[in-house]
Amino acid sequence: MELWYTEQHSDDARFSLRVERQLYCGQSEFQRICVYRSTEFGNFLTLDGYLMITEKDEFIYHEMIAHVPMAASLSARTALVIGAGDGGTVRELARYPSLERIDMVEIDREVVSVCKRFFPGVACSLDDERVTIYYEDGLKFIRAKQNEYDLIVVDSTDPFGPGEGLFTKEFYGNCCNALTDRGILANQHESVYYREYAEPMRRAHKILGGIFPVCRVYQAHIPTYPSGHWLFGFASKGIDPVDGLRAAEWERLGLRTRYYNTALHRGCFALPNYVIAQLEGEPGESALPGGGDLRAEGGLPGGGG
Amino acid sequence: MELWYTEQHSDDARFSLRVERQLYCGQSEFQRICVYRSTEFGNFLTLDGYLMITEKDEFIYHEMIAHVPMAASLSARTALVIGAGDGGTVRELARYPSLERIDMVEIDREVVSVCKRFFPGVACSLDDERVTIYYEDGLKFIRAKQNEYDLIVVDSTDPFGPGEGLFTKEFYGNCCNALTDRGILANQHESVYYREYAEPMRRAHKILGGIFPVCRVYQAHIPTYPSGHWLFGFASKGIDPVDGLRAAEWERLGLRTRYYNTALHRGCFALPNYVIAQLEGEPGESALPGGGDLRAEGGLPGGGG
Repeated sequence: MELWYTEQHSDDARFSLRVERQLYCGQSEFQRICVYRSTEFGNFLTLDGYLMITEKDEFIYHEMIAHVPMAASLSARTALVIGAGDGGTVRELARYPSLERIDMVEIDREVVSVCKRFFPGVACSLDDERVTIYYEDGLKFIRAKQNEYDLIVVDSTDPFGPGEGLFTKEFYGNCCNALTDRGILANQHESVYYREYAEPMRRAHKILGGIFPVCRVYQAHIPTYPSGHWLFGFASKGIDPVDGLRAAEWERLGLRTRYYNTALHRGCFALPNYVIAQLEGEPGESALPGGGDLRAEGGLPGGGG
Repeated sequence: MELWYTEQHSDDARFSLRVERQLYCGQSEFQRICVYRSTEFGNFLTLDGYLMITEKDEFIYHEMIAHVPMAASLSARTALVIGAGDGGTVRELARYPSLERIDMVEIDREVVSVCKRFFPGVACSLDDERVTIYYEDGLKFIRAKQNEYDLIVVDSTDPFGPGEGLFTKEFYGNCCNALTDRGILANQHESVYYREYAEPMRRAHKILGGIFPVCRVYQAHIPTYPSGHWLFGFASKGIDPVDGLRAAEWERLGLRTRYYNTALHRGCFALPNYVIAQLEGEPGESALPGGGDLRAEGGLPGGGG
């Protein structure tokens, strides 16, 4: 017998993992939560059928969403993490001694409970004494906050289902208010490749750019995410993610990381032309050449030389 | 009815594309050559069942294997391309007016013929008057050459089947002899993520490092390749790929590219820590944490702070 988990990356492309067995499946108030053991990627978590994290490559996502903003803001004392019930982002943030307080808002208590049980290496810092978990709606939680956090990490699910409101103008505006003057917002920014992911990616970028003076996008290679090419947002009231990088100071912290390093910090903001074009383009434009449009836009190779 | 092409990225992970129809399938002297029309990625080519190029994302691979070495060597006059029967690498090289001669060695005449028919946008420069195609074994062809090429691009298939000899010490040593003093070798370097690909990647890097004074690795996001995270090698007799980048001069050429740009040129050499560890590690070491080894090696997250 063979058991395979399959995720549709689009209607016409899919990625499958061999599954040894189902470890858990349950319906919370908000979504269907399942954990499987895969042969290639260790345990993995799905929410409403979408793959969220695998044991093998979760370090890439969590290091990149946490260390990039932190290395540009080493004096940050207060952080808010929205979503992120698996605890991976909190795990990485908790490695910074400068952070005195880490608040986490997760709408679904069940996600935290399941991750503590099946992903102890990911949820391992949720009991850190600096960490407070609020089981609330992130959208409502953030409305009441003013000038309170040096860092906000929006570690949302995809922009459908419970995570949908975390991609709106109202939400990002409230995040801006909740940040201090030196504040930084980092968010998971979806991917550029498949249309279903690229549209909300572009929308979020436009909204952030209208609110924050500094609004940049950076990238990472995440094998189990659609196309393997994942984007993150960096927005701030003034700090530039590359000029603001305090590499020597970061090195002195002695954090050992498996993906992130300060050379890569600089490199990950250098995006491919077609990604830049997508970020700057109008909503509704095609996400990538179906053999056609980017050729026309960007010039047929051979035609430019 | 549904028709899907599936490639195993490992025994336990696979990627599938919806196929509208088979356009061609034939057995050459060397391999089985097939072309399918997919809904998501346009036409795609397989050799012995392995996906080689798709119309939609081939530009990433071909731009990165051609423009990175060329932008560091704008005075190159002679280039040799080994493999690459689809013509994509030649297409990108042919955009440089400085190149007076582009030799291409492809062992399998059928690949070229099939690509001219089904990938006219890729094979479009094979009839350029500076291009000569030699239908020979690249291993033998290169033995007779001394101090002849400013650039060699090894655009091989994977290191199993006909491409296997293109990952050996003898071959790379002959490439070194065939290069001029300002010569650069660029090669497709497989991927780091899945073990089957990571082993030859590491072996090739070790061999190249023993032959060339400068030996670097760079990366790109290629959605249809295993893990989406693909590596390329840059080896030279002295030119450094980053210090040697002549960005302003390259910009003046006015080439329009869809992935490559000079900021990305610098960024793509900034590799993740786990990739660096793999490149420097011993053959036989595990390619990536099956939940286990990189954690132990690199420090459990949370343990370093």
